[in-house]
Amino acid sequence: MQGLTVVTGGVTAAQGYRACGVSAGIKRAGKLDMALLVSDRPAAIAGVFTTNRIQGATVKLCRERLGEGVARAVIINSGNANACTGAQGLEDAREMARLAAQGIGCDARHVLVCSTGTIGIPLPMDRIANGATAATAALKADGGPEAARAIMTTDTVDKQYAVELMLAGKTVRVGGMAKGAGMIEPHMATMLAFVTTDAAVAQADLQACLTRAVSRSFNRITVDGDQSCNDTVLLFANGVAGGAELNAAHRDWPAFEAAVETVCRELAMNVVRDGEGATKFVTVEVRGAASDADADLAARAIARSFLVKTSWFGGDPNWGRVIDAVGYSGADVREELVDIAYDGLTAFQQGRPVLHQRLPELEAVLRRPQFALTVDLHLGGGSAVMYTCDCSVEYVKINSEYMT
Amino acid sequence: MQGLTVVTGGVTAAQGYRACGVSAGIKRAGKLDMALLVSDRPAAIAGVFTTNRIQGATVKLCRERLGEGVARAVIINSGNANACTGAQGLEDAREMARLAAQGIGCDARHVLVCSTGTIGIPLPMDRIANGATAATAALKADGGPEAARAIMTTDTVDKQYAVELMLAGKTVRVGGMAKGAGMIEPHMATMLAFVTTDAAVAQADLQACLTRAVSRSFNRITVDGDQSCNDTVLLFANGVAGGAELNAAHRDWPAFEAAVETVCRELAMNVVRDGEGATKFVTVEVRGAASDADADLAARAIARSFLVKTSWFGGDPNWGRVIDAVGYSGADVREELVDIAYDGLTAFQQGRPVLHQRLPELEAVLRRPQFALTVDLHLGGGSAVMYTCDCSVEYVKINSEYMT
Repeated sequence: MQGLTVVTGGVTAAQGYRACGVSAGIKRAGKLDMALLVSDRPAAIAGVFTTNRIQGATVKLCRERLGEGVARAVIINSGNANACTGAQGLEDAREMARLAAQGIGCDARHVLVCSTGTIGIPLPMDRIANGATAATAALKADGGPEAARAIMTTDTVDKQYAVELMLAGKTVRVGGMAKGAGMIEPHMATMLAFVTTDAAVAQADLQACLTRAVSRSFNRITVDGDQSCNDTVLLFANGVAGGAELNAAHRDWPAFEAAVETVCRELAMNVVRDGEGATKFVTVEVRGAASDADADLAARAIARSFLVKTSWFGGDPNWGRVIDAVGYSGADVREELVDIAYDGLTAFQQGRPVLHQRLPELEAVLRRPQFALTVDLHLGGGSAVMYTCDCSVEYVKINSEYMT
Repeated sequence: MQGLTVVTGGVTAAQGYRACGVSAGIKRAGKLDMALLVSDRPAAIAGVFTTNRIQGATVKLCRERLGEGVARAVIINSGNANACTGAQGLEDAREMARLAAQGIGCDARHVLVCSTGTIGIPLPMDRIANGATAATAALKADGGPEAARAIMTTDTVDKQYAVELMLAGKTVRVGGMAKGAGMIEPHMATMLAFVTTDAAVAQADLQACLTRAVSRSFNRITVDGDQSCNDTVLLFANGVAGGAELNAAHRDWPAFEAAVETVCRELAMNVVRDGEGATKFVTVEVRGAASDADADLAARAIARSFLVKTSWFGGDPNWGRVIDAVGYSGADVREELVDIAYDGLTAFQQGRPVLHQRLPELEAVLRRPQFALTVDLHLGGGSAVMYTCDCSVEYVKINSEYMT
């Protein structure tokens, strides 16, 4: 993206934010499991949440508090999702916010709360309380990377990305952090992601900007097809960089949109790269579909198919499983028109295998740590892209050993 | 089922059928990979096929030949699905039928063809031709079990079931065979299954009987959520047992329907028990849904979730992953009303975990080789059942090593 410089710092790359990660004892002893992100000034806030009909207590609270239009902080714990925990869960989420607000010295309604981890187990509130107190004392201007580590569950690496750009004559930054690594097929939001900017942005337009960016980033990924009940993406804009408030009518608005989208897409791709047990990053592109909606159905079915994903793990260019998934996806398809290629190398053309005698070439593509699968339905102008990963033996190990 | 006696013999349990399994060299040397099933008399024929929009060449041919109303035989190969193989594939399927018809001495239009195995690779027709010749010479009255072994792909055991009952004053038999073990979520049919009876049955009513039985058996199972493009269930009725032709108006019709349903359900359950890598057989029952359709959505989402299935493999009563799947299934759900039980032991009640302090008891249920998961949504009278299995490390190994 022209005019964007990548910078370090994650959610504290932008001015006027502090963060930290502490160990509250929710996960095994010593592991970071609580993060706090604070804006020194009230920030315009936007959020996008799971469309799962079962929603975690913290999602309910965040939705409610988004109505305030501004926020000062978000407190996050990993190791326990505080979902399906009844009325007590909602009370516990409010108490987490109250504890953080007390430490920061702000209105509790301006503190958002997110939780991630096991579903259906009450929060250990004594540990949460100690953690919240410790976190307010540990805030620092370069705490972004530490916070990014504290929100991890089965993630093996933290996910951060930040960029710098000129907007309305001022240097501003947009940075974020996210966590995966399982129960990932967002469809309107993802697991947890937090994006901050020191640009000043009108709240209504900030929400539109985030919704658009999420639809092009987090909503295009899948690890296992399971949509979490806690998916949340929050975007803070505190205006500390100075300058006039940006809105959708400003000539620099497209540049701001692009910066937010870039940060969201990089974070989303990193979630896939670190998908549970993943060894390969695969871009699935469907084009020539009868409509964009059809292309989306077909791309999702391929990206979600465990038969396709295990074949990738085995290094097998199994076009048969790919076209089978297109067939049951609900998308219009005519077998005799379908082309399938791996990194541009055609394996299947007009409904027939054309390269099975050149299998070694295709298998070489499949050995790459990342590759693109392109399916052309030759029916119309619809297209869609999904980012996904393979499914390894490690995926099953992780999820059979990650106990309630 | 009252009045039903279980008998041996599979598809040759009923009178007037011969079958065999031979090695045609499609799979590794020496493995049985071609089966032939012949009715000595023209039999009324019924069939149910995949609803995948991509359909194998043999499915196209079977659909066409079902219009004849009668059939003499079906020739089946494993190791290659003859799907996504273009016009050549359809020609190859016709040639397989012609070769079998020549050997049997019947009209080629009365021979059906099924293939199962890798998708998108042309059939090795020289081997198919030799195999078809060998098969017509190997037919025998007790060849059902051999045929059942010859249609296996990643199956570890063959699937056969047969019953005897009195119908219209005559002793008749209904027997069948099926194969799994991956790409199993039939939704209007299953992989391959063949059912024979020596009852005389009117063709139109035979089709209605099979459609009903399939909706209650093969369409209630899932192994991996991937719907095959070759799913086929065929039912032959040759009347060799004697007696008047049965039809839907006959007083014994419900008994015939029940016998066909019993055979189909036993075969379907055996497909799940032998699902790729499966170590546990799980019955998922959703009740109290707003409608039967909602119950079906919820039961399918649970039974299909790899997070739920891997937790079962790990022996973890992970009700959180179960309710999460209900939440994204599309079914109406109110968290505060949901109850979840494992073999009758309540784990989650009115939207809250109630048994996490009694985890050892629940874990003992999860160690059973088969158990039932019941989800009550308390919203209405809708219900649905799905039969499924866990997902083990072996599942990934099988599917990453099963090469194109």
